[in-house]
Amino acid sequence: MTIYVTFETMKSEFARILANLGFSAIKADRCAEIFAVNSLEGVYSHGVNRFPKFIMYVKKGYVKPDAEPRLVKSLGSLEQWDGNMGPGTLNGLFATERAMELALQYGIGLVAMRNTNHWMRGGTYGWIAARKGFSFIAWTNTEANMPAWGAKDFRIGNNPLVFAVPFEKEAIVLDFAMSQYSYGKLETYQLDGKQMPFPGGFNKEGKLTAFPGEIIETRRALPIGYWKGSGLSLLLDILVSIVSGGLSTSEISLKEAECSLSQIFIAINLDNLYNSEHIEATINDIIKNFKESDPDESGIKIRYPGENVVKVREENRKNGIPVNRSVWETILAL
Amino acid sequence: MTIYVTFETMKSEFARILANLGFSAIKADRCAEIFAVNSLEGVYSHGVNRFPKFIMYVKKGYVKPDAEPRLVKSLGSLEQWDGNMGPGTLNGLFATERAMELALQYGIGLVAMRNTNHWMRGGTYGWIAARKGFSFIAWTNTEANMPAWGAKDFRIGNNPLVFAVPFEKEAIVLDFAMSQYSYGKLETYQLDGKQMPFPGGFNKEGKLTAFPGEIIETRRALPIGYWKGSGLSLLLDILVSIVSGGLSTSEISLKEAECSLSQIFIAINLDNLYNSEHIEATINDIIKNFKESDPDESGIKIRYPGENVVKVREENRKNGIPVNRSVWETILAL
Repeated sequence: MTIYVTFETMKSEFARILANLGFSAIKADRCAEIFAVNSLEGVYSHGVNRFPKFIMYVKKGYVKPDAEPRLVKSLGSLEQWDGNMGPGTLNGLFATERAMELALQYGIGLVAMRNTNHWMRGGTYGWIAARKGFSFIAWTNTEANMPAWGAKDFRIGNNPLVFAVPFEKEAIVLDFAMSQYSYGKLETYQLDGKQMPFPGGFNKEGKLTAFPGEIIETRRALPIGYWKGSGLSLLLDILVSIVSGGLSTSEISLKEAECSLSQIFIAINLDNLYNSEHIEATINDIIKNFKESDPDESGIKIRYPGENVVKVREENRKNGIPVNRSVWETILAL
Repeated sequence: MTIYVTFETMKSEFARILANLGFSAIKADRCAEIFAVNSLEGVYSHGVNRFPKFIMYVKKGYVKPDAEPRLVKSLGSLEQWDGNMGPGTLNGLFATERAMELALQYGIGLVAMRNTNHWMRGGTYGWIAARKGFSFIAWTNTEANMPAWGAKDFRIGNNPLVFAVPFEKEAIVLDFAMSQYSYGKLETYQLDGKQMPFPGGFNKEGKLTAFPGEIIETRRALPIGYWKGSGLSLLLDILVSIVSGGLSTSEISLKEAECSLSQIFIAINLDNLYNSEHIEATINDIIKNFKESDPDESGIKIRYPGENVVKVREENRKNGIPVNRSVWETILAL
């Protein structure tokens, strides 16, 4: 059963629980804010639904509430930081802010962070940077959760990648994993007794299938663009591991839980560029042209990445954030 | 009929033709080298097979042989350059070298170039940077050549994206477009009377199809990862247009030919990083783990991006570069 929880209630419950686990007041507030905003904006899988698992990671010591990121090496507009196993959310926020500071100074700023944790929703950092007027690119590695192209066993991560730019008073934010569908999404289709609209993995005969149960059985989720997503996952992992000096997907996969990740955050300052006065107009023109596409027969809406977020945010502000009652009761009891 | 041409003969023929069209001796040599290396390394579509079209663009004045890139704005580790409609190959080489210089100074360097031309093979610049020890990311926009997700008409480009890292004495280079198959590839399958191994677009009933002729008919090529590649194409175009101050895909599409493109080149200096002594070992470990994947039943070889290039390069060095005789005769007559 679905209940509706206001943003303020959700955030304050999260903050209460975090404070009890050793988060300082300001860290509890910031971390609670990220989980609550993710939920408000419809990314429940990395908001309210993920919160109990995050708390479990804190309790098990995988995530250290009081850890502060430490500067390891500065090369100018590129800095390496050690996340010291702190919360991925707070480390991510820190790295985003630091990348923006470097971008103000040098035009572009790159922060590479090792020994950090799951950042929950990559889009979080894209929205923050883009709404402050920056272009933003970031990615993280993960544990191995997908076979390489031509393989059966998990060797590559779904390594989410984020691109963001300002748009009107909001942002355009692309936040996507290298697997076509997450296992969470496959399970939702399975529970609903539905097929996916497009193939999302291989069945035990090695054929592409849109039946979620067949993919859950084989654990052979499809990389986006077949061999291309497999290659992109590999390159993202190599780059993030060597530039941060941190663990790779294969090293993370040897740990007892998915922690000690490597991440890259890149901000670009748009304010001092040639043509900065035309940037808004350029983005508006590109989006206008995109939206004027001739729709096909599928009924799929032609949307830019992040377009739906603003609508969901407004709905959830008005009606409350939809939460499964038992998930919410679990959280209240934490 | 296929004939075999040595690298040296091919390069010197290209250089002769370019010199006759107003390229200085050094520019003719560099540009000829890029086209010949692309062919040597098996990327014929953007090497020998493309050369006559490149010459036509020079003759029509779309590509200006004597243009020099001009610095428009420097923000530190980010620079904007105007390509002045010069050859995309030479501008690309220049931008790659400049991005590496900035990376040596600041850790990371970004060169954004507007008013440039088709760079031919994006991998060219990745191989150069990675073999000099840099990590490298670059992308270009193109004219509109693919429908957005949910649409029928061309509004987005296939905007090739390149990631490269050093590996042993060679490199790992991922160079991929946002469309699953290029029209060139679809035509090759059609000529051979074959289906693609995986769906590559939509037929006139709006269903996914692996029959090349059906896609050539509808012009509805598939973005990689369905909606994800469509979104990535859009974001790459927005970023490259605003950061370079140049034309977007929709603006390029209004021109009489595909020219005046916008491109981004990013180099990362790996030498002064924390853990720089372990970078080689990290990459080796990741590749070793990747290659140890358990193969599926498809018979597809588990290869890292660029793995095959070294083999093809050696074969073509030994046997000569395979060229269609009529293509070669056309070139000799230029």
